[in-house]
Amino acid sequence: MTTIDTGPSNNHRGSDEWSSSWTHFSVDRRSPSYCKVVFDHPPINTITARTVAELAELVGLIEQDPDLNVIVFDSANPDFYLAHYDVENDPAKTVALGTGPTGMHAWLDLLVRLSRAPVVSIASIRGRARGAGSEFVLACDLRFASRENTVVGQFEVGTGVVPGGGPMARLSRLVGRGRALEILLVADDLDGPRAEQYGYVNRLVADDLLDGEVEEIASRLARFDHDAIARTKSYVDQVTLPPDSEFPPALADFFAMLRRPEQHAQGARLRELGLNVDSDLERHLGARVVDTLPDA
Amino acid sequence: MTTIDTGPSNNHRGSDEWSSSWTHFSVDRRSPSYCKVVFDHPPINTITARTVAELAELVGLIEQDPDLNVIVFDSANPDFYLAHYDVENDPAKTVALGTGPTGMHAWLDLLVRLSRAPVVSIASIRGRARGAGSEFVLACDLRFASRENTVVGQFEVGTGVVPGGGPMARLSRLVGRGRALEILLVADDLDGPRAEQYGYVNRLVADDLLDGEVEEIASRLARFDHDAIARTKSYVDQVTLPPDSEFPPALADFFAMLRRPEQHAQGARLRELGLNVDSDLERHLGARVVDTLPDA
Amino acid sequence: MTTIDTGPSNNHRGSDEWSSSWTHFSVDRRSPSYCKVVFDHPPINTITARTVAELAELVGLIEQDPDLNVIVFDSANPDFYLAHYDVENDPAKTVALGTGPTGMHAWLDLLVRLSRAPVVSIASIRGRARGAGSEFVLACDLRFASRENTVVGQFEVGTGVVPGGGPMARLSRLVGRGRALEILLVADDLDGPRAEQYGYVNRLVADDLLDGEVEEIASRLARFDHDAIARTKSYVDQVTLPPDSEFPPALADFFAMLRRPEQHAQGARLRELGLNVDSDLERHLGARVVDTLPDA
Repeated sequence: MTTIDTGPSNNHRGSDEWSSSWTHFSVDRRSPSYCKVVFDHPPINTITARTVAELAELVGLIEQDPDLNVIVFDSANPDFYLAHYDVENDPAKTVALGTGPTGMHAWLDLLVRLSRAPVVSIASIRGRARGAGSEFVLACDLRFASRENTVVGQFEVGTGVVPGGGPMARLSRLVGRGRALEILLVADDLDGPRAEQYGYVNRLVADDLLDGEVEEIASRLARFDHDAIARTKSYVDQVTLPPDSEFPPALADFFAMLRRPEQHAQGARLRELGLNVDSDLERHLGARVVDTLPDA
Repeated sequence: MTTIDTGPSNNHRGSDEWSSSWTHFSVDRRSPSYCKVVFDHPPINTITARTVAELAELVGLIEQDPDLNVIVFDSANPDFYLAHYDVENDPAKTVALGTGPTGMHAWLDLLVRLSRAPVVSIASIRGRARGAGSEFVLACDLRFASRENTVVGQFEVGTGVVPGGGPMARLSRLVGRGRALEILLVADDLDGPRAEQYGYVNRLVADDLLDGEVEEIASRLARFDHDAIARTKSYVDQVTLPPDSEFPPALADFFAMLRRPEQHAQGARLRELGLNVDSDLERHLGARVVDTLPDA
Repeated sequence: MTTIDTGPSNNHRGSDEWSSSWTHFSVDRRSPSYCKVVFDHPPINTITARTVAELAELVGLIEQDPDLNVIVFDSANPDFYLAHYDVENDPAKTVALGTGPTGMHAWLDLLVRLSRAPVVSIASIRGRARGAGSEFVLACDLRFASRENTVVGQFEVGTGVVPGGGPMARLSRLVGRGRALEILLVADDLDGPRAEQYGYVNRLVADDLLDGEVEEIASRLARFDHDAIARTKSYVDQVTLPPDSEFPPALADFFAMLRRPEQHAQGARLRELGLNVDSDLERHLGARVVDTLPDA
């Protein structure tokens, strides 16, 4: 039961804390029980050290808010939901993010905490969500996606590294061994219909109906009893969430492999061809990653 | 190999025990190896303390019958397979059912024992199976459903309680985290095509072909070797059945949350609007549950 | 990174070892990183003790080759990918295969080692893959199948035995309890669309495009960094592979049940009706297995 002006709702943080100082997304607290976040980091919504720091702060607010039932993550850019991670020519920035309350690196930490938060997180996917962008949507509870305009994938193996943010742990449980191995090893883009068929997303909605349908679901959840949501989710968490210990080794591999000379060279070729900007490479990264291989 | 007049078949209980005294369903022992049960508890096949007691007795017969290969559960009401649980204005009746041989409450006990029985249980779904009705079909081994006329769902969170009969344990393993969370938290109805897409049911069959297809499958199973069925199922059980310890905490939560004043009030509104009878509310419960929320 | 003429590639076994002496399949080492195997054991690609011995040798070569990224398994017979196991009227031959390096029977051993090998194994399925043929494709990492011309299934329960090569362990995790129980207990054929819907195969490809699509995927994988593939697969293995201890008990059951007089009799009827040759029985084994039941 959500109540607007009595009881524990008085304990939630002021709207100042929720609305202040975000630079890679905007936050709209629609009501005490419903929050909407819109990714807006031009040109293609890459995730950088700053995005991680801001998302970590946001997750902290979510965890401590006794009234919040549902949080929707949308994108201001219809072509790029969250492109992928951008090390900004300085991997040290990412390493310097340090660890969060779980003791894991900030990126793993915020994803794990979002998954466990007593709140329903919804990814409303339109455009591309690859690499760390895919890792983010996999850490959300529900994934609804545009039928016509969705691209998801883990392209990392095509660049010679292990995906570091948990997709082996999450996809293995979500879509089964065969399809998880295909997504991760073939490392190609999946369009909406294939993502839905594989169970990578919950289901597709026609692009012009997506916003309305997600709004309807979120508004419904916003009216439900907080405790019923939190306890029911917690029982599902016990069965479906990977143990924390699965995550750090793959991230350590990612960082170690990224330091290899071959990956430096391939990274340079990717940037030459248009990584991190709205380019043909970024629009068709699953197919074009092979153009950056050493024998290309 | 099933044999009609020799060996262990002489040990199965008399047909008297199988045919006597059922009031919420009928039992047709087609042959020593094949039994068909038809739910028939007007007006909408709710599950009450009496249904639970009768199903518990039936499961006891199933467990002890060395000849039975397959049991089909069908419904006499094409619009309501098993509506949901009805506490009959007296939750004490349900509590008074006590525990079964597993040490768990009678409802959990009979579902767990049905899942483990050395027999193939088939839910032939036509009409609505929500709440405890959905919990029953999830405890069956195979679920075939009418393409045009199926509604399944767990609406409990919409009434402020945790689903108590095991769907967090079973759906999490059957359809994966994302879709399980959607079914349980959004708590809306799923039609046949979505239920099939999510893996909630094995598959759909055109409504006019459903009875024939289930009959064909059951007749085939009835002719197979009992031991081959029992052992093969047992190997699948070892991998797929939740540990018993997962079930009781959620049922305890369900009873505790049901006693809250808000849930008493919402229960009264549900009954005013037509709960437990063939009403517009019951036909569209997933959508209409929001009409009974405190801020409605 | 695959390199043709330097470093660890000098350690891979000579092409002599890869190309010599195979009788039930051919091996084409397309490049240091890509190998293609074509099953060719007329008339219907049954798996015999000899097939097992040759596959075990092949898996040994795969495991020890530091350059190999991908191995494709195709069939020379468009109607039969791998029919099923053929005990050749002499089960002793199969028992005499002994155990492999894992300590398990040679058949289980080679499937388990193929699943764990640091290489992507792809089943390119056209025609029938039943029984042990299905067990083989389930042990491969990726399964692509002809849309028009695929039949998969585990018919063993229809012949009175438990499937012995691991499908309870693998299907339970791949397609979930309900669909795994249907495949294993109803024991009927699945066509391509149902196999894809259930997640038994990754996905279908139109028959005339299948070879090209698998070739494209394999060529892509052949160019990727070996270590990125091997480590990423290993993380998925940790979550998705059954523990070794799950396999031997079912194979022991299979051998024990096969020795029963009823199974001897049914085996004789199967051979009379055309088992192990290109017959109507073999083309429609899922449906026709009931014609061999004792009460048929």
